[in-house]
Amino acid sequence: MKPNPHFYPVILAGGRGTRFWPLSRKRRAKQLLALDGKQTMIQQTVARLLPMASARRFWVITNHDLRAALLRQLPKLDSKQVLAEPVGRNTAPAIGLAAFLLLRLDPDAVLGLFPSDHVIADFDQYRATLSKGIEIAAAGANIVVLGIRPTRAETGYGYIEAVATDANGSLRVRRFTEKPDLATARQFVDVGNYFWNSGMFLWRADTLANALRQHLPNTAPILEKIAASFGTRKFAETFRRLYPKCENISIDYAVLEPRSAKGEGQSRIFCLPSDFGWNDLGSWTALHEHHVSKSKPADQTLISASGSFALNAKNNYIHAPGKFVAAVGVSNLVVVETDDALLITTLDRSQDVGKVVKHLDERKLTKLT
Amino acid sequence: MKPNPHFYPVILAGGRGTRFWPLSRKRRAKQLLALDGKQTMIQQTVARLLPMASARRFWVITNHDLRAALLRQLPKLDSKQVLAEPVGRNTAPAIGLAAFLLLRLDPDAVLGLFPSDHVIADFDQYRATLSKGIEIAAAGANIVVLGIRPTRAETGYGYIEAVATDANGSLRVRRFTEKPDLATARQFVDVGNYFWNSGMFLWRADTLANALRQHLPNTAPILEKIAASFGTRKFAETFRRLYPKCENISIDYAVLEPRSAKGEGQSRIFCLPSDFGWNDLGSWTALHEHHVSKSKPADQTLISASGSFALNAKNNYIHAPGKFVAAVGVSNLVVVETDDALLITTLDRSQDVGKVVKHLDERKLTKLT
Repeated sequence: MKPNPHFYPVILAGGRGTRFWPLSRKRRAKQLLALDGKQTMIQQTVARLLPMASARRFWVITNHDLRAALLRQLPKLDSKQVLAEPVGRNTAPAIGLAAFLLLRLDPDAVLGLFPSDHVIADFDQYRATLSKGIEIAAAGANIVVLGIRPTRAETGYGYIEAVATDANGSLRVRRFTEKPDLATARQFVDVGNYFWNSGMFLWRADTLANALRQHLPNTAPILEKIAASFGTRKFAETFRRLYPKCENISIDYAVLEPRSAKGEGQSRIFCLPSDFGWNDLGSWTALHEHHVSKSKPADQTLISASGSFALNAKNNYIHAPGKFVAAVGVSNLVVVETDDALLITTLDRSQDVGKVVKHLDERKLTKLT
Repeated sequence: MKPNPHFYPVILAGGRGTRFWPLSRKRRAKQLLALDGKQTMIQQTVARLLPMASARRFWVITNHDLRAALLRQLPKLDSKQVLAEPVGRNTAPAIGLAAFLLLRLDPDAVLGLFPSDHVIADFDQYRATLSKGIEIAAAGANIVVLGIRPTRAETGYGYIEAVATDANGSLRVRRFTEKPDLATARQFVDVGNYFWNSGMFLWRADTLANALRQHLPNTAPILEKIAASFGTRKFAETFRRLYPKCENISIDYAVLEPRSAKGEGQSRIFCLPSDFGWNDLGSWTALHEHHVSKSKPADQTLISASGSFALNAKNNYIHAPGKFVAAVGVSNLVVVETDDALLITTLDRSQDVGKVVKHLDERKLTKLT
């Protein structure tokens, strides 16, 4: 498979990942953590895309809290390739800016949109799927989304409803559905033509630019102005001054949902069913499951520590790298220790860890967030 | 109540207290910890006895691992008053040595034997009971034990069977019983004439010396020789050379049990029923109960930390003084953090913490013990 010379990976790396507190912090978000192996999530994201596009074709969009750390972790990228939004404006302006920037560099640019904090098991399959997606996207005003075949009735994800097989081997998208309730999620899984929205999209830069001009007529010209200043001395100032004027809206809500709903099976949005061991590692519990599935410890207890002793312990995730850990008669726990904090929760309740960060934000305990 | 000028408190402070690991260590045993309030257990023990005897009349028997720390914690005591056994020989030789030492200082000495790691709630009641006990002990060849009225069928304690009220207001002891099984313990509590052995005893030094001469005829002369060298240049060397030759036996087994069994209600051992809020704080769970009973937190969760946030947490004991602790959806846990270790267990299983120390001993992980 020959890499497409017009493919540009755009990585969204501005998330905070509060559910990995106390390891994740404002300046050390989930994408900067080595949750799975030696490389951090963003490093893994870049590494598995490098065979598809040379380093100079990557773009990373993040915020000022994370930019310096990201640059340190990605030495192959030039500082110009890592853009820090002056303020958060959700995904549509961020992706739109990338589209307008790329359009100036390469009129045939195919933009690949990637979250920065997911894991993927099968790299070959991943790149094969991407190549196919790039081909479909490059061929016209198409939008390609990688859809993950659901393995459980997950209520934390968005779903894609697909309706018919297209000649290009993908499915037509009928509808994007936000996080469903449990009964709906179960139905989706049973029906079989629903996929998890992976957040990975492929489209030509001009397709995306045109879509933004149509759906966000006020925001698109602002983004074009910012893009026009790129590479000049005025870029930083223009970016800082104009970007806050963009609408605060997600790409799903701004472009994808209106486009998919209109067409009723005739939309130009295609879903590529993807089966490459995707995991968004959305919580400590997901991380525990991920590690257990790889290392298969007898008691399903994972302890990262300097020495440990487990007695009648079962199904725990314990992270306390500098300590000797003794776990006696405990099960289903998540315990994570850092220099300044100690989280104690259960595998069932770890989705509530974000509430701890909310509490810390409210109390302005900024050192801990 | 006038203090008895012949009363000498002898505090046994050689225990290791492994069930408070990781806070307790070889050189920082339970008696050296401030588990209950600002003072350490040994400091509390001395403080509540000081109104009964001036500081110079105290004796502390410990081991070499703990002696320096004990002296630092007890600045009112002279270094001569804190004896470190060259080797552990259980309680009979330790107490016997104290008896022979005191006999040389004061032929009318009344020796009070005290564990160093218990808490007592009602000091006035405690000292009133002690005064009465000293009176009985001083009056003749009597042995007085403070008996705690049992509040539950505890299998971790020794029990005292009392048979009849004596003219002096105490009960005659019929029998000492080692830690019973649960059914037996329940029977003891139901019957009503059984008391927990508090480990607090009162007797004249000559009574104790004579008892040792009778029951431990080989050991008593050794102890007399050591005591005879006290205050001379030869004491340290004599202690180190002769003490290991003593029998390794508890005072209960050597003296109390044979004496009580003989008399059948006519023994000279008296039990003083004691009601002063005694607690031996035998485990993290006991400590949790003790604190909860005092501070009555709504969710029975106790967190000592630099800041904390509890969400749906109930009935936990968490100690991580330097950290911000977040407890989310957890119950019945014990979590204790030190510079080098992290213990995670449950209130139901905290008695197994000693097994962690056993494991560390076996692996020779001496830094952690």
